[in-house]
Amino acid sequence: MDFWRPPSDEFHDDLRALLATRNEQLLRGLLAELHPADLADVLENLEDDDCTYVFGLIGTQNQSRAIAEMEEGARERLLSVLKASQIVDLVEDLDSDDATDLVQDLADDVAECVLTEIDPAESRRVRRLLAYPEDTAGGIMAVEVVAVPEGERLSQAIERLRQAGETQRDVPQVFVVDRGGRLTGTLSLRSMLLNEPDRLVGEIADREFLSVPASLDQEEVAELVRKYDLVVVPVVDDVGRLLGQITLDDILDVYEEEASEDFVRLSGALQEESPRDSVLSVSRNRLPWLLLGLAGGALSAWVMSRFVTGFEFREALQISFFVPVIMAMGGNVGIQSSATIVRGLATGEIAEPTSRARLVKEIAVGALNALILAAVLWLIVTLWLGRIKLAAVVGFSLAVAMTFAAIVGSAVPLVFKRLGADPALATGPFVTTTNDIVGLTIYLGATTLLLQWI
Amino acid sequence: MDFWRPPSDEFHDDLRALLATRNEQLLRGLLAELHPADLADVLENLEDDDCTYVFGLIGTQNQSRAIAEMEEGARERLLSVLKASQIVDLVEDLDSDDATDLVQDLADDVAECVLTEIDPAESRRVRRLLAYPEDTAGGIMAVEVVAVPEGERLSQAIERLRQAGETQRDVPQVFVVDRGGRLTGTLSLRSMLLNEPDRLVGEIADREFLSVPASLDQEEVAELVRKYDLVVVPVVDDVGRLLGQITLDDILDVYEEEASEDFVRLSGALQEESPRDSVLSVSRNRLPWLLLGLAGGALSAWVMSRFVTGFEFREALQISFFVPVIMAMGGNVGIQSSATIVRGLATGEIAEPTSRARLVKEIAVGALNALILAAVLWLIVTLWLGRIKLAAVVGFSLAVAMTFAAIVGSAVPLVFKRLGADPALATGPFVTTTNDIVGLTIYLGATTLLLQWI
Repeated sequence: MDFWRPPSDEFHDDLRALLATRNEQLLRGLLAELHPADLADVLENLEDDDCTYVFGLIGTQNQSRAIAEMEEGARERLLSVLKASQIVDLVEDLDSDDATDLVQDLADDVAECVLTEIDPAESRRVRRLLAYPEDTAGGIMAVEVVAVPEGERLSQAIERLRQAGETQRDVPQVFVVDRGGRLTGTLSLRSMLLNEPDRLVGEIADREFLSVPASLDQEEVAELVRKYDLVVVPVVDDVGRLLGQITLDDILDVYEEEASEDFVRLSGALQEESPRDSVLSVSRNRLPWLLLGLAGGALSAWVMSRFVTGFEFREALQISFFVPVIMAMGGNVGIQSSATIVRGLATGEIAEPTSRARLVKEIAVGALNALILAAVLWLIVTLWLGRIKLAAVVGFSLAVAMTFAAIVGSAVPLVFKRLGADPALATGPFVTTTNDIVGLTIYLGATTLLLQWI
Repeated sequence: MDFWRPPSDEFHDDLRALLATRNEQLLRGLLAELHPADLADVLENLEDDDCTYVFGLIGTQNQSRAIAEMEEGARERLLSVLKASQIVDLVEDLDSDDATDLVQDLADDVAECVLTEIDPAESRRVRRLLAYPEDTAGGIMAVEVVAVPEGERLSQAIERLRQAGETQRDVPQVFVVDRGGRLTGTLSLRSMLLNEPDRLVGEIADREFLSVPASLDQEEVAELVRKYDLVVVPVVDDVGRLLGQITLDDILDVYEEEASEDFVRLSGALQEESPRDSVLSVSRNRLPWLLLGLAGGALSAWVMSRFVTGFEFREALQISFFVPVIMAMGGNVGIQSSATIVRGLATGEIAEPTSRARLVKEIAVGALNALILAAVLWLIVTLWLGRIKLAAVVGFSLAVAMTFAAIVGSAVPLVFKRLGADPALATGPFVTTTNDIVGLTIYLGATTLLLQWI
């Protein structure tokens, strides 16, 4: 086949028909045409017993590649019905980083059993990788690397590449190390092809390279890769010894993960949802923050009820007309500021030394827009209700509430960052709800005070 | 130097001091240590005359690599003060894709002048690339590829790789083509290293590859790369002839662009902002949607003023207490639904055949949570105000408004997608404002009707 393409609608119809009759031979033929990534999609969307059945029809190599691509929920369900001996075969077939991810999804006793059964060298590699936090360079690296000593000839380096065998990912570089295993340079496959085989590796190695410590956050690794156009990232220990490598497919997964996380933060859900999750479990996933929002709303209602007692009914009602606009505009300005700061932190464009200047600028922008909108609102209220004083108070309160929202919206992501939390949490409902209540209080407080004075 | 690292605070202090005294020699030394990507950062953050001065101190190769990495605004300012002859040197030094990006940033007359001056072959390449829309496979590909005919021996393929020279990116594959220039396979540098030089290319080529048409949207290219773990993407024309290649650094830039766009949508700004933009221009960038939001708020106030005339003041006030909670909860539920759908569309997880089912599910989740929260609110209002009937009406209205918000939040991204607009627009202020007004109308309408009936 020339091109990989996601399976067609026709494929899905055929699959359903053949599954209904458990037509093993035709199913094998149908599935043989799929890329492991598409096999993973197919498996994710099948009912549990169909999934186990289909999984049994594809060869071990496809099994291991497909299961490495499956999303966590479906994968855990599938793993839970496989025999330990089957899992051993899968783990042995995978690169150390994918093998580690798989073992992490197993129940503790099954994981221990699998780690005892597999090839001892592979077991050591996986155990070593299990020790790194999942979201660090160590957590996403593979330990399979081609390391060539400085003093060897190019022909020996080529032999090492051959011995590394087919499991080796399609990387464009091998690594050059000194006697202590410390990384001292890289050697592109291109220069291996174009130089004479008897050249010394140390002579043709590229000495300008970037390596990362195993503890570096995966987001920072991704940012370095993007900024410096890296093709593979060597991971080293404290003294510069080569531990493993991160390939670009891992980096793209990091980008995907981070983007998903941002959307989870935005929607104020507890965790990422899967298309197979039931309505009930999705509902449960989103309910806690909604309940918090409701509590905030109830608090708003109570705040309003307290304030309006100071006014005559007619005036209190007129004041209440503008509560929605104050709250909505505070929300809009707050999200503008927090989206800007969250994005700046994510790209590394906002770093520590400049963050105070950015904070001041964000607040200045918020305050400027607040003033403009306050003037517009003042005009609207004056023309509509003909009450210049009330209009001035409403406009002024809008300006104060919006400026405050800009301060909260830009400061909170920076504070979250400093506390080690995800700044993107600031785009979620917690900050919005806080802004709502404080904005309302500012508005009602300012109204009470000003209408008494002027 | 062993490691590339972003320049230190100390570097910035030195730079400022040397710039103040225009100490050319020491500045050259200081800048020589920087990676072009860091040079780009430095240039972006300098005042215009300092930027031009520093740019003049770095060699042509660093100039072209740095300018390729600069963000658009700063780059356009720098280009506008360079002589056409300088720009010619820069363009000739760049790969065709970066050269095309640069030419796109030039004023039309300068661009034409540069395209006439540069090497005719490069000029043809750039003119061809300029014809593709910027956000398609054709718009991000480079035309520099190593294409090896089927019938050649491996030794000849290696010679072609050598002739392609250093401008060739560090890619792990070359492409195999037939006599008509049609792509028929790929050849990894690894297999070029491990096979005998007299083997025929056609015998060792890998026939399982994926190619994309030049018109494919860059987001879809990125999704294919991530899904199938590609290391480089060949771009072909209608009949399968090789046009160019997309390397992973371009794909990472696509991810960055899309993430930035999402945040721009979220904040309801007109376009992406740059850290060097003035407060005034950032303010202007965000103001239009805020004004729209204000108009929506004014409309809300008017809607409230119409409705409350049907009630006695005391009751009208009590009803108004719950306006904030109705609006906030509608907003929260709406953003949950739209974030889920937008994300699903971005990952390709929601495709046409399944989208109706997803829509129904989203609405079911929204309605379920609406009912739960309505019950909680009913309890709160009953306990607080002791008015069971009002409590029931408020709770019921909350349920209807939230369900409606879930419908709008999940349907709008799908409608946007079908109309060819960016679904992420649905997370912005337009949808939020619409939800606010409709939620308010539902609440007040339901209150009016129900309090009369029961």
